[in-house]
Amino acid sequence: MSESWVNQRRGLVICVSGPSGVGKGTVISRVQALRPDLALSVSVTTRDPRPGERDGVDYYFRSADEFRRMLDEGEILESDCYCGNSYGTPRTPLEMMINRGTDVLMDITVPGSLAVMQNYPSVITVFLLPPSFSELRRRLAGRGTEQPDMIEKRLQKAREEIGKACLFQYNLINEDIDETARCILSIIEAEHCRQGRLPDLEEAILAH
Amino acid sequence: MSESWVNQRRGLVICVSGPSGVGKGTVISRVQALRPDLALSVSVTTRDPRPGERDGVDYYFRSADEFRRMLDEGEILESDCYCGNSYGTPRTPLEMMINRGTDVLMDITVPGSLAVMQNYPSVITVFLLPPSFSELRRRLAGRGTEQPDMIEKRLQKAREEIGKACLFQYNLINEDIDETARCILSIIEAEHCRQGRLPDLEEAILAH
Repeated sequence: MSESWVNQRRGLVICVSGPSGVGKGTVISRVQALRPDLALSVSVTTRDPRPGERDGVDYYFRSADEFRRMLDEGEILESDCYCGNSYGTPRTPLEMMINRGTDVLMDITVPGSLAVMQNYPSVITVFLLPPSFSELRRRLAGRGTEQPDMIEKRLQKAREEIGKACLFQYNLINEDIDETARCILSIIEAEHCRQGRLPDLEEAILAH
Repeated sequence: MSESWVNQRRGLVICVSGPSGVGKGTVISRVQALRPDLALSVSVTTRDPRPGERDGVDYYFRSADEFRRMLDEGEILESDCYCGNSYGTPRTPLEMMINRGTDVLMDITVPGSLAVMQNYPSVITVFLLPPSFSELRRRLAGRGTEQPDMIEKRLQKAREEIGKACLFQYNLINEDIDETARCILSIIEAEHCRQGRLPDLEEAILAH
């Protein structure tokens, strides 16, 4: 695309979600391996950095007061608490990246995704589904890290979360990781071509 | 996709349009070269078959009376007259193909596309744009087949047609044929993943 107005192409924000065990993290890593120019959204947290973790790379490390201020000012698109610490997705770094034309992936929980849809309506939303519920059970049990009652709890939660798939723009059955990753790349490419994505496109073409 | 309910995937109808000279035909041929399983919609016409033309392959050859009956019965999605003969896009062969799971491309004029949107709302619509209006002029002049006043007439029509791009779901700038063809394939893949494309998907997954 050599013409100057086409270079105004902004990045897109793509939220990838799905129930625990569906393989979200693996799929996102595969997408990034295929397209290293895609960025991954960095979360903000109130927990202390662990050895080797870098501010702005692994997380944005902020105080509880600062986190609260960010929440009050609408700077946090979605947030959650875990082991007494807060985690959230900050708006400003995201907007800086898309203004530079970088596409940004978000690896996010189902409730977090619903909050992002509210607070950032231009987000593109992808829900990963297991090929079947019994396959999800196999995957969760196969990790070998959890007790049966914990697995049942996760499955119950997954069942509720799968009911939210209809609120996402795209539903992918994650049967084959490569195929799912390629589908996500196709979605990103197609979404860039959606009508209205480049402002005043027709006028620019007619004027040149 | 090994699970039986996923095999219920229906084909999509993709209408590719744009002004004269934008390279529609070339792009569609390239798409078909990359994906030979995609079908091309076959038009119905009242003109006589030329030597070697086969009914149902090149065109559906029908009498003027039959064409009129098809129009009256809503069987023709869009139609046009040229040199005293009628041409149109029939609905039934399209529906038979998508019911078999085949994606169907339509190479169609801008007014024809607007008619299809009315008569077949589930169509996916792609508008090809030239990189610039001066490039479109170069392409039309470069054909060397037309007089300057005819070129000006086509450019005037193209200018009006480009104003309709905003009515199409996707707008592609056809600068590089391969890139445009790949974008169309991405659009088809992404559209297959749109929420709601597979009826009762969540229920089927939870039940298995």
